[in-house]
Formats: sequence, C-alpha cells, structure tokens
Amino acid sequence: MNLVLLSAQPEQALWEIRESRQLQHLQQHLDLKVGDQLKVGIRQGKRYLTEVQAITAEQVLVKPIQELAIPEKLPVTLIVALPRPKVLRRLVMDSVTLGVEKLVLIHSYRVDKSYWQSPFLQQLDDYVTLGLEQAGDTIAPKIELYRRFKPFVEDVLSEWTMPESPSFVAHPYAQQGLPTVKTAHCQVLIGPEGGFIPYEVELLEKNGCQSFSLGNRILRTETAISYILGRLGI
Amino acid sequence: MNLVLLSAQPEQALWEIRESRQLQHLQQHLDLKVGDQLKVGIRQGKRYLTEVQAITAEQVLVKPIQELAIPEKLPVTLIVALPRPKVLRRLVMDSVTLGVEKLVLIHSYRVDKSYWQSPFLQQLDDYVTLGLEQAGDTIAPKIELYRRFKPFVEDVLSEWTMPESPSFVAHPYAQQGLPTVKTAHCQVLIGPEGGFIPYEVELLEKNGCQSFSLGNRILRTETAISYILGRLGI
Repeated sequence: MNLVLLSAQPEQALWEIRESRQLQHLQQHLDLKVGDQLKVGIRQGKRYLTEVQAITAEQVLVKPIQELAIPEKLPVTLIVALPRPKVLRRLVMDSVTLGVEKLVLIHSYRVDKSYWQSPFLQQLDDYVTLGLEQAGDTIAPKIELYRRFKPFVEDVLSEWTMPESPSFVAHPYAQQGLPTVKTAHCQVLIGPEGGFIPYEVELLEKNGCQSFSLGNRILRTETAISYILGRLGI
Repeated sequence: MNLVLLSAQPEQALWEIRESRQLQHLQQHLDLKVGDQLKVGIRQGKRYLTEVQAITAEQVLVKPIQELAIPEKLPVTLIVALPRPKVLRRLVMDSVTLGVEKLVLIHSYRVDKSYWQSPFLQQLDDYVTLGLEQAGDTIAPKIELYRRFKPFVEDVLSEWTMPESPSFVAHPYAQQGLPTVKTAHCQVLIGPEGGFIPYEVELLEKNGCQSFSLGNRILRTETAISYILGRLGI
C-alpha cells in the first residue's frame, strides 16, 4: 500500500482513516507516528501528501498539506480471457497497478463456464482498490465483462479497432513479434491457459486484430500481462 | 506445466514419469490418454516431443519421437533484493519462465535479515523446476546469493559492468526512463519493497550502474520484473 484510498472527499479539515484493512497495514508495516507524512487519495479524485495528526486504535487523523499529481494511465485496453478465480485477484490488481485505462474480461472456448459463477467476480472493486493503493493511483480503470466471444469480437472489438488504435492478440504460433511501432492507443488481447483456439484467432484476425508471438516460452497469464505492457513501451 | 522435466537422461528406450507432482498434474489437468503427445525435457539437456505408451497409477511411459529446439535465454542477469519468503517462490519461478540467464539474490538495507533464514531458500531448485516446466525450458539459470551488499557491488557487480554489458538499477526518483538502447547483455537490479536507500543507489552509481525510473507508479517486485524484462526488449 503506497497510498491510502478514501472512498469520498471528507468534509472536515482533518481526514479520518477508519477502514480496518488500512489501519492494520499502517500499524503493521509502516510503524506510523504522529508527524509522519502519508500519501492519501480520494477515489476518482485527487491525491495528497498528508501529515499524521493523531493515531488511535479506531482511526488515523491526517491533514492534507500538498496536492500530488496523479500517475498517468497507459493508453491500453487490456482484454483478457476470464482466468481461474484464484488468478483473477492478482490479474486485476496488477493490471490496475500497471495503469491500464480499461480492463475487459471475456469468455473464450477454453474458459471454464463455472468461472463466470465465481464469487470472486463480485469482488472486482476490492481488487481495483488494492491495485490503486499499490500504484499510488486514485482513478479506477473501466472494467467490462463480455460472456459471449463472437458478439464481443464482431460488434464491440471491431468498433474499437482503428488505425490509430490497433488491436493485438498474443498467439504462440504467430510469425511476427509484438510490433514496436508506438501507437496513441491500442487494445491487447490475452487468451486463457492453453490459448485461444484456431477458430477464435481466425475470427479475431478477420475483425482486424494483428497476431503476435511472445517467442517460444509459455508465460503464465499474469506474467504475460506485465511483460507485454512493458514491451509495448507506450 | 508445459513440459515434463526429468532429472536425468533415461537409459531405456521408453521413459518413465514417476514423480507424484507431475503424475498428479497430468491426471488432473491434461486428461492424458495413450497415444497423446507430450513434451518431455531432460534437465540441463534436450527436449522432445514424446508419445504416451502406457498410463498406470504409478507411472506414465513415453517414447521420444522428435527433438525440439530449446527456448533461448534472455541475455540478462537479474539482480533482486531478497524478497519476503512468500514472494520468493513466484519471483524465482517467473524469472526462470521469462528466461533470465542468471538470477542473483542480494541483501539490502530494507531486506529483513530473517529472510536469509527462510526455509524457502532451501527450495530454490524446486521453484526453478516449476519455472522451467511452465516455460517449456530445460536449462536452469545460474543462481547466486550475496549476503553483503557493499562487497557485492564493489567486487562483483563492478566486474560484470562493461560497455557491452551495462548495469541498470530501477529507482523511483531517477530522471531518465529505461534506455531503449539494445545491448548484447545487461544486468538489471531491482530493490526491496521500499526501494534501495540513497546510500545504496549512490554506491551503485559510483560503481557504474545507471539509474532509471519506471514512471510514477509503484509496482510490486514480481510485476516490475516482467515489466522491465518486457521493456528491455532484448
């Protein structure tokens, strides 16, 4: 946690941190004392350097002393086949930390249908909070879910794909590597464990997606996401 | 697991997979049948496409049918401040999967001394195996441990740092971004949670390391590793 995220702009001059998860972190990891400086952000709002005024078991009182610039987002829409529930938390958190503008979870042939019933899908907002607090960011990316692959590709992705916003799909058997051409914005698709099936890759290509290979190592989804976002170098 | 790693070259024509971890994975995730093809590698040796000949509760018998090229390594020595034990497994596994040539774990001011007593450090070889099996690789990277920061930087890193093999240290407050200059080989240093302290960064710079910033987002160590290796684009 590199920033404490408050859900709304406080009305008083002194701000209260009362959430038990946040208090616990401040106590256990930061050894916080009165007079220390602490970064505090308002969800969907600004972020500030604050000074700790008082610490009790139930709350930490801070006073904002300086506004700080909010980290810029990566101009990327990340589109990922819904992963196993236990991978979902880390995937959402990492994507948010890395600063993607929009995160899209889609169905695909190799996504087990039961994943869409996972209670973890109800906790996306908590994972977003964790990702923002790790990055020091306050602005949540948009998250969209599409449970049908073909309509998503034909009706949604095809509309997003433009010369100034190309779409790329990671595919182990593609011939070309990830282009190093810098674009203003792009969509990046990452398949499920085992990859997209040939029919899906064909449908994506028919709708304007460019396939690229990550070389002949097979990466876990979470590892692939940060590797690709690093490689894009936007 | 995208390859089954055997610890030594079998002497018989048919090879036995007997390790319970591997058998369990083959049963639970691959639904393996006689006649299926399976990638099998010999640790520190070659890798092959094999055909499954027999399946029992105690073993899977395979016959090698075709040698496969081994994935190339990234010409990178990754140097990381020893992380919390629960992060270590994933960090080693990911670094191996991504294909770093050498992985170096070092001490740093913000590394808790107790981490060096962690029993997880005895299991590095198991984590390497998992990383190789994920990547489909057979060749383990070298792993080195240095428990003293200053002698490592002054006596070891300074020897590794050369014009044709520069050293880079990720540092949140550096002015320049990661250079996109392609080099034949490089060293990349990643600090502990909270970063290297100013004294350490100064010592690194004095010994030829170039600091670079990853922007104003703060990434977890594991996320930073694949992001930086992607960005290096070697």
